[in-house]
Amino acid sequence: MQNANRVLRLTSRPDGLPGPEHFTLTDEPGRALAPGEVRIASSFISIDPAMRVWMDERPGYTPGVKLGEVMRALAVGEVVESRADGLAVGAWVEGTFGLQSHPVVSSEQARLVDARLGSPEDYLTLLGLPGVTAHLGLFEIAGLKSGETVLVSAASGGVGQLVGQIARAYGCRVVGICGGAAKCEMVLREFGFDAAVDHGQSDTDLNRALAEACPNGVDVYFDNVGGRILEMALNHIRDFARIVICGRISQTAGQPVHPIGNLGEMLVHRARMQGFTVGDHFHCWPAARQDLARLRDEGLLRTELHLLEGLENAPVALGMLFRGENRGKMAVRVM
Amino acid sequence: MQNANRVLRLTSRPDGLPGPEHFTLTDEPGRALAPGEVRIASSFISIDPAMRVWMDERPGYTPGVKLGEVMRALAVGEVVESRADGLAVGAWVEGTFGLQSHPVVSSEQARLVDARLGSPEDYLTLLGLPGVTAHLGLFEIAGLKSGETVLVSAASGGVGQLVGQIARAYGCRVVGICGGAAKCEMVLREFGFDAAVDHGQSDTDLNRALAEACPNGVDVYFDNVGGRILEMALNHIRDFARIVICGRISQTAGQPVHPIGNLGEMLVHRARMQGFTVGDHFHCWPAARQDLARLRDEGLLRTELHLLEGLENAPVALGMLFRGENRGKMAVRVM
Repeated sequence: MQNANRVLRLTSRPDGLPGPEHFTLTDEPGRALAPGEVRIASSFISIDPAMRVWMDERPGYTPGVKLGEVMRALAVGEVVESRADGLAVGAWVEGTFGLQSHPVVSSEQARLVDARLGSPEDYLTLLGLPGVTAHLGLFEIAGLKSGETVLVSAASGGVGQLVGQIARAYGCRVVGICGGAAKCEMVLREFGFDAAVDHGQSDTDLNRALAEACPNGVDVYFDNVGGRILEMALNHIRDFARIVICGRISQTAGQPVHPIGNLGEMLVHRARMQGFTVGDHFHCWPAARQDLARLRDEGLLRTELHLLEGLENAPVALGMLFRGENRGKMAVRVM
Repeated sequence: MQNANRVLRLTSRPDGLPGPEHFTLTDEPGRALAPGEVRIASSFISIDPAMRVWMDERPGYTPGVKLGEVMRALAVGEVVESRADGLAVGAWVEGTFGLQSHPVVSSEQARLVDARLGSPEDYLTLLGLPGVTAHLGLFEIAGLKSGETVLVSAASGGVGQLVGQIARAYGCRVVGICGGAAKCEMVLREFGFDAAVDHGQSDTDLNRALAEACPNGVDVYFDNVGGRILEMALNHIRDFARIVICGRISQTAGQPVHPIGNLGEMLVHRARMQGFTVGDHFHCWPAARQDLARLRDEGLLRTELHLLEGLENAPVALGMLFRGENRGKMAVRVM
């Protein structure tokens, strides 16, 4: 049956790390389309830190997923049935389609993907949320200028690896913070960072390592983790530094909050800190994607996609992401 | 002797609150002017929170005062002797002239004061650093818009009282945080704030009071104090809020640092936080002063100047400021 739908529903809430025990897999019949709706065959589903936040009851900037609902997730897929004007069978689309193989959504929930710019895999990485997030964070939020020093945390992750490569393509010195020697190696070798610092060391040693890696201080700190590493990075900002608050993976999943004791650096250095999410900046996506595709075509962007096969492995992938076991952007391929 | 100079030198460094015990008063002969220099008779000397920071050895955004040096302070005065082209005897000037009655400075250290815009007292308050700081913070840093809710801490202080009145003149709802019922009364009665909240209550009560005073949340938080009150204010920000980091009086003078545990609100609300100092924005001063004089002429700005008489009382005034005993902008009149 073409419209059968394999679905992962959230059936319990985690206290700490998320995993398979919080989801229930079912095969369900697809429902008939209403006017204006399309049926999509999802090809790839993105596994993101925000999903852990959505599993909580307390809403962040988007409401939580209710128990029994299809788990929220971003995906790329192909329209396989359409009752929507202007969205034909065969079109590629992206959207918040959830952990399911054959989502049915209204036309306005599906954003058309320009297949001329890149492959479906590209729309998970450099042309997808990671790439657009990195690009908007650096240019719209931080106002990056050539020659500056950019420090980024979770540097080997989906966003971090692109932050570094984009900034480097624009003539910046790029320093990554990663967990463990293997990830440090990866950002140096595969993504061409100028320096990498392992956060698994004492505060004193980490401060020394950051000072050595950023001899002129940090102009832009792109923060994906929050907590202790944000606090350490603030010790190294220059005058008029910009701190992009993109994620706080270290402060979610029930982990203890690390309060920040050195916000005084914001005043000493007249620095600017800004939280952002790409969903507030849809108007900037087309130009960012054009620029990202150009950088890719010039051979300046590599991406590492960590794919698990099969929708049913999405909860496993989510657990790996929170244990830091991913190498590059985490996703599942829907079989 | 016209050029005798009464001087307060920093002779020891405080661990905690600053006071007379850290200064030595001397009467010294004035030195002859070199070419390009002027002698000033200071009329009013501003007593500011930053002075406590300058008393430390560790530099902030300006270096500390060395032991034995004239204590740094801002002042307004009249040129009484001049060897500088274009700066005549009788001109009114402002600058970082220090705690002394008859400073000798080079011409470029003295900024000309336009006596047509206001009195010397005005240049301590609404046309001086407090007014310019409030105006630049609200418009250049926060991008204030009419109809927004503005929360300001140290609301009865030199900057705070003007933040509230300027924002109100531009059609905003204005809420002040103060220490004690008397200061709350003052910002409501004398400065026309819409609401005032006493920070001398439990976290739970303070959160409730802020929620009641800001029913739609906070668009702009103008922070003069840092620490616990900054953390409380962050609990009430709206989406796209701007937090102006202008001062941290609660976190200086050797008081314990209060780390901030809720920076996650910056991401949830895609907020922007920026440290600033007016010295980085000299190009904006003339327009800000024109606007401030206009608001004053329209009867929309009152200022409260807490004057002690005599240079020798400057250390007493500084101690009062840090114990929160001032009513309005603290300054001394040089006799």
